[in-house]
Amino acid sequence: MARIWLLNGPNLNLLGVREPAVYGRATLADCEALARARAGALGATLDFRQSNHEGVLVDWIQAARDGADALILNAGAYTHTSVAIHDALKAFEGPVIELHLSNPHAREPFRHRSFVGPVARGVIAGFGAQGYALAVDAAAGLLGG
Amino acid sequence: MARIWLLNGPNLNLLGVREPAVYGRATLADCEALARARAGALGATLDFRQSNHEGVLVDWIQAARDGADALILNAGAYTHTSVAIHDALKAFEGPVIELHLSNPHAREPFRHRSFVGPVARGVIAGFGAQGYALAVDAAAGLLGG
Amino acid sequence: MARIWLLNGPNLNLLGVREPAVYGRATLADCEALARARAGALGATLDFRQSNHEGVLVDWIQAARDGADALILNAGAYTHTSVAIHDALKAFEGPVIELHLSNPHAREPFRHRSFVGPVARGVIAGFGAQGYALAVDAAAGLLGG
Amino acid sequence: MARIWLLNGPNLNLLGVREPAVYGRATLADCEALARARAGALGATLDFRQSNHEGVLVDWIQAARDGADALILNAGAYTHTSVAIHDALKAFEGPVIELHLSNPHAREPFRHRSFVGPVARGVIAGFGAQGYALAVDAAAGLLGG
Amino acid sequence: MARIWLLNGPNLNLLGVREPAVYGRATLADCEALARARAGALGATLDFRQSNHEGVLVDWIQAARDGADALILNAGAYTHTSVAIHDALKAFEGPVIELHLSNPHAREPFRHRSFVGPVARGVIAGFGAQGYALAVDAAAGLLGG
Amino acid sequence: MARIWLLNGPNLNLLGVREPAVYGRATLADCEALARARAGALGATLDFRQSNHEGVLVDWIQAARDGADALILNAGAYTHTSVAIHDALKAFEGPVIELHLSNPHAREPFRHRSFVGPVARGVIAGFGAQGYALAVDAAAGLLGG
Amino acid sequence: MARIWLLNGPNLNLLGVREPAVYGRATLADCEALARARAGALGATLDFRQSNHEGVLVDWIQAARDGADALILNAGAYTHTSVAIHDALKAFEGPVIELHLSNPHAREPFRHRSFVGPVARGVIAGFGAQGYALAVDAAAGLLGG
Amino acid sequence: MARIWLLNGPNLNLLGVREPAVYGRATLADCEALARARAGALGATLDFRQSNHEGVLVDWIQAARDGADALILNAGAYTHTSVAIHDALKAFEGPVIELHLSNPHAREPFRHRSFVGPVARGVIAGFGAQGYALAVDAAAGLLGG
Amino acid sequence: MARIWLLNGPNLNLLGVREPAVYGRATLADCEALARARAGALGATLDFRQSNHEGVLVDWIQAARDGADALILNAGAYTHTSVAIHDALKAFEGPVIELHLSNPHAREPFRHRSFVGPVARGVIAGFGAQGYALAVDAAAGLLGG
Amino acid sequence: MARIWLLNGPNLNLLGVREPAVYGRATLADCEALARARAGALGATLDFRQSNHEGVLVDWIQAARDGADALILNAGAYTHTSVAIHDALKAFEGPVIELHLSNPHAREPFRHRSFVGPVARGVIAGFGAQGYALAVDAAAGLLGG
Amino acid sequence: MARIWLLNGPNLNLLGVREPAVYGRATLADCEALARARAGALGATLDFRQSNHEGVLVDWIQAARDGADALILNAGAYTHTSVAIHDALKAFEGPVIELHLSNPHAREPFRHRSFVGPVARGVIAGFGAQGYALAVDAAAGLLGG
Amino acid sequence: MARIWLLNGPNLNLLGVREPAVYGRATLADCEALARARAGALGATLDFRQSNHEGVLVDWIQAARDGADALILNAGAYTHTSVAIHDALKAFEGPVIELHLSNPHAREPFRHRSFVGPVARGVIAGFGAQGYALAVDAAAGLLGG
Repeated sequence: MARIWLLNGPNLNLLGVREPAVYGRATLADCEALARARAGALGATLDFRQSNHEGVLVDWIQAARDGADALILNAGAYTHTSVAIHDALKAFEGPVIELHLSNPHAREPFRHRSFVGPVARGVIAGFGAQGYALAVDAAAGLLGG
Repeated sequence: MARIWLLNGPNLNLLGVREPAVYGRATLADCEALARARAGALGATLDFRQSNHEGVLVDWIQAARDGADALILNAGAYTHTSVAIHDALKAFEGPVIELHLSNPHAREPFRHRSFVGPVARGVIAGFGAQGYALAVDAAAGLLGG
Repeated sequence: MARIWLLNGPNLNLLGVREPAVYGRATLADCEALARARAGALGATLDFRQSNHEGVLVDWIQAARDGADALILNAGAYTHTSVAIHDALKAFEGPVIELHLSNPHAREPFRHRSFVGPVARGVIAGFGAQGYALAVDAAAGLLGG
Repeated sequence: MARIWLLNGPNLNLLGVREPAVYGRATLADCEALARARAGALGATLDFRQSNHEGVLVDWIQAARDGADALILNAGAYTHTSVAIHDALKAFEGPVIELHLSNPHAREPFRHRSFVGPVARGVIAGFGAQGYALAVDAAAGLLGG
Repeated sequence: MARIWLLNGPNLNLLGVREPAVYGRATLADCEALARARAGALGATLDFRQSNHEGVLVDWIQAARDGADALILNAGAYTHTSVAIHDALKAFEGPVIELHLSNPHAREPFRHRSFVGPVARGVIAGFGAQGYALAVDAAAGLLGG
Repeated sequence: MARIWLLNGPNLNLLGVREPAVYGRATLADCEALARARAGALGATLDFRQSNHEGVLVDWIQAARDGADALILNAGAYTHTSVAIHDALKAFEGPVIELHLSNPHAREPFRHRSFVGPVARGVIAGFGAQGYALAVDAAAGLLGG
Repeated sequence: MARIWLLNGPNLNLLGVREPAVYGRATLADCEALARARAGALGATLDFRQSNHEGVLVDWIQAARDGADALILNAGAYTHTSVAIHDALKAFEGPVIELHLSNPHAREPFRHRSFVGPVARGVIAGFGAQGYALAVDAAAGLLGG
Repeated sequence: MARIWLLNGPNLNLLGVREPAVYGRATLADCEALARARAGALGATLDFRQSNHEGVLVDWIQAARDGADALILNAGAYTHTSVAIHDALKAFEGPVIELHLSNPHAREPFRHRSFVGPVARGVIAGFGAQGYALAVDAAAGLLGG
Repeated sequence: MARIWLLNGPNLNLLGVREPAVYGRATLADCEALARARAGALGATLDFRQSNHEGVLVDWIQAARDGADALILNAGAYTHTSVAIHDALKAFEGPVIELHLSNPHAREPFRHRSFVGPVARGVIAGFGAQGYALAVDAAAGLLGG
Repeated sequence: MARIWLLNGPNLNLLGVREPAVYGRATLADCEALARARAGALGATLDFRQSNHEGVLVDWIQAARDGADALILNAGAYTHTSVAIHDALKAFEGPVIELHLSNPHAREPFRHRSFVGPVARGVIAGFGAQGYALAVDAAAGLLGG
Repeated sequence: MARIWLLNGPNLNLLGVREPAVYGRATLADCEALARARAGALGATLDFRQSNHEGVLVDWIQAARDGADALILNAGAYTHTSVAIHDALKAFEGPVIELHLSNPHAREPFRHRSFVGPVARGVIAGFGAQGYALAVDAAAGLLGG
Repeated sequence: MARIWLLNGPNLNLLGVREPAVYGRATLADCEALARARAGALGATLDFRQSNHEGVLVDWIQAARDGADALILNAGAYTHTSVAIHDALKAFEGPVIELHLSNPHAREPFRHRSFVGPVARGVIAGFGAQGYALAVDAAAGLLGG
């Protein structure tokens, strides 16, 4: 049974509240529900977490080495600044999927740089909450599901 | 019934032959088959084309104004150089999805710039042929499918 | 009798439809009418064309060596990317006028670079359809009309 | 009756004397005569001034808020360095036309940046003295003349 | 009664000890005392905190959505590197004031970039401990105090 | 009795009229009144001036060497372009305060560079007319008032 | 028998006419004659073509996968802008030779970047028509001729 | 007796497991053993720690002000991004040694920038686990050991 | 009899007072005396002026077209920012000498750019007041004196 | 009889030994033999030298003014750093050919800049030892051989 | 018995005399003595040389291919400019150690670039004369000593 | 008696022959004669040398520590590339004068960077052979002559 971890970075706990014009009105719980539904349909388990702390995200990515077959990461703002997350991801052996609610390349220049991108197998961005289901689908596909 | 156009740019006709280490062994026909299967399952029609000519792609994107509800574009190399395609996309009123077989941000710097990105609703990249099915899924979702 | 060619590049066939907030509501036919009226008043002939294909524009600029005394070029998006058009213009011996509907320097940074500019005698930009008449006037003036 | 102000910046009083290979042999008085003739033909009044002082140009642009319906500005060297003129122009509510005798984009890189451009409705450059008549024509057109 | 939160970032707990030539000899307790005195005089409450952890600062800024009417942030080093704090501030609806003891623009280039600046209503920098009182004054003013 | 000079640069005489969305509706006279009131309360004298001319501002800053104990400068657009003002400020021996109505770092990139900043003791920006009172307060504080 | 294709890009059909100071007075027919003579002497066949269209050049490079043992490409202006040609060349398995009449590195900066260079085995530039014979010689040599 | 602290940043707990081609097969425990052996031989005490959290590293560096005579820091990924660590190190009065297992300058460009370097007395990089012993040796030497 | 004009830009009237560590203790009157002495010895006349106003310097350089055989310019801060002075100098037909008291290339980066340099025959910098005599000597030499 | 000098720069004496994957297995003696054979066939004399010293190469290029009709230079690493060689080449009046064993533009970025290129008539790069014969051929051709 | 060569570049012969605030008061002879002592203790031979000539350093690095098992290089100023030394080092098959007396990254920006770094196994910098002993220790360690 | 050394770098031995349009027709012997005449008149001795070798120039600058009171250096091309000369000059305790025949800032961009400038007291450039006399004059002046 495929084990997928879906980790969320800073400020994603405010989803639905913060800047709805950019991020939409769905909450993180809505995203989780969409992801769990798709995982269930595909016969995969899903571990879903959020933290505002870069170090906690690094800890979790390290832990995923034992607990996960694939990793979906919406690193939020740390996408653009964290070499530590980049390095942690390089130590994860399964596929990594970079996920964003909005399309960073249609936003400010400092969001155009991604430290997740170079170590990710694939990227899904700009589809709002629906992207969470697509990412689970993609992860299952990469695992041969 | 949702009408989706999926346009492919230069050298994608060589898929499966050209640099399989980067692009995989699936052919463009394989990609089309995956996309058509998913479109069929979702009750959408699919118009699937490929051209090596920037001007032809611009012509098709203009034509999509009348014929398509959503546009999926794997612009290949023109992603990184074509302001003409960028402008044509801005005149398309439905959602646009940027699609790539590989993850451009894990490749050469000149592939990091996208003229499609700023006018795309979402991006799907790095999932090889599977990405064609995901993109159709995403397009249908954006159309409320 | 002065022979003026006025060539239009990609997406200008959508004029009046595409992004009216930027480009105005006049169509390309309206522009042509204004240009023809002014040419007629000044006793000049006008050859008016549009293409979405960079190669076709290069072909036409080459052909203008024999058919035109002055060349007005609204190269659209190719203004910013086409060295091929730049080179073709260098082989044209009469005056070249760079024409734009909007003012590229008041728009995105990638529209600030012009490959037409360095080989143009003059520039007229930002006056919408009226600019077509001004450009014909300017061309006639440069030809001593 | 349309009121047009045409302001000239530093060193334009030397026109016809300074670098004729770049700027032509017409004097500023010749330019003024061409502009006045065209204004007269179009039923507009013309206020024509020149100063070498950035502060004086700022004063005049501020004064144009009361006295002018449209503003034509050949800011000369201050085009490339003056944020003060940029800010003054933003406070002018009628249309602004950027005017140059030569084509700055065919010259040194430091002339490629324009602080006038982003606040101008249109640009006319490279037509020498003839450009003064074209600019008056364009201004009258923008005022619905 | 206006509720003001004043958050301090990394190394500000060392104030008075660390590099007194740059930051002065006042301690963070001295700064707090000055801020509290001014808040008291203006009839505002003050919540004053410090952390070396970026994630904790993000948590606090999120909490300020419920607890504060205005936010004063001396983000210290995170000013120059934290997109996470930038995003958290965008979700705060009251006014944000960027505060620094020294003037970052008179220091190393890497301190010239601020991720707080673009989302701050105002900036007060370079006045040492006195700046804390000024910032409270400014916050109260913005709240109509 | 502390002597404070408060100098204003180009276009600030238009305050309240020019771009109220950016600069607010208070006039320069309102700013002066706020500054004078605060100076009076603190027992300081205030010399308040405005000019659109860079050279005049340099003259005044030089004169402040004899007449002022502290200098507050809202250099407006010259903030971003004037090395001459930078050099004049270096010759002033009392504290210098950089003042802006809006926050330049939340605006266009060319407003991010300040030639005043490296020679200023402190910066107050973004508080509109209220900033004039805060700056007087800060100046008096730096003079030990 | 070695099969060599020699493809020419935009504006090379004007050779001998366009900017003779830069490109010399030999025509493209002269170049072809020199190349054919050398190919004949070395026992190789030569396929010689020219197009102003980027897409056509991509088509031909793809076709060369079946028809050619070595590819000589004078891509003209597309050398500096075409990622599409770059990608097509990567799919060609024999040796590629980049050919120019003039030395791009002694010309404008925008000609210093080559998208052909990174995928070419060797470069011959600056020898005018004679370079066509040298390139055929080099190609034959690489094929062991 | 010299007191040396040796702090390790993010992902160094994975040493021996993560990317052995880059970082070698020695574990962090091996590194600690080598460092302790050298410290013992030189009569110094060693405090050895690791954390994935930037804030924790800042806390420890602050604590080192009281507990350590010299500080060895392998900040891992935070080397390249943390101004907070930079500032904390500036407040430490003894010598600081920057330590890396690999040579950052032989790796990706984003690893070429070091915020530790400008505040470090010396650097030891590229010697794998052996570097830990060399760094202890260097620290003891700087302390006059 | 050779006629030399020696013009001084902003803040040079403060010489001897402003930043003596950089500019020395000689006053502008001392510089003038040295220059006059050397001019007298070489049989040349000297016109010596100073202004803080860019526009006045432009006016004077224009006037030098009639009154001077050679021009020595210590443009001070305007050296680094004034395209207007650059353009005025291009209209002066005799030799121009760029003069500085200190060596700009040993100072801040924004002093490394000179708009005077490209239109000056020679440069003398870094010799303090003595440089005024050297410049007069050089000017006389260029005039064949 | 045409006199050709072929000068080789640093490390070329290690040819065949150093990095054969990049430079091939032919030795410099092999290259010399190929060049001599071709020179003999074309009735030219060849002077063939190598030095690791920039100054010696400058000396030789100066000497070539008297001894050579054409100069072929494989400057090796000095290609990318030596303005001194650039200047010496400008003083040589016959044609200069830039020669490289590998294609610098397919290697590290610091090899993309050439100080030889702007003063070379032509370039031959990437053909290994065979390039030595091609360069002699090209040189003879340029001399009308 | 391990054979180590320790080569020193330009100006290191002035050690102890030149800028003691940066480089310390130890002479190069002192450095050599420290290195020899450590080499003796570790049972290695040491060849110690210095030259101001880039070409001589290249010669020696080439010679080290036969004479040395490991190479320690303090290339001094050539670290930052010499591609020739970079290339010579790539041809050396044993380990290379980059050595500096001071920490280049705490100095001027032009010392931040190293052409030695990308081809060095490790770096030791900033420890003054003591660094010579550490480097010998590190070299012996890399050779398994 | 003041001892002045005047050192000349690469290609200056070709003076009068190489690019007379840039460097004039005077030979280096003419320059030496002018310098000697002025030194004689001022009671100073002159040591005049030239070399094409960077290392030799470094050797000579080191030797000047004992033999010279002031150093005049026309480093030619090494001005723009030699950190080694920069470092050697820093170890010279008397005044250093940077000398050029032409004005580097009116030439190619790569001549705008000077490694001599930051360690030179003054600069004399653009006066051709006459500059040699001016530099001796300046050196004597700096020595109090």
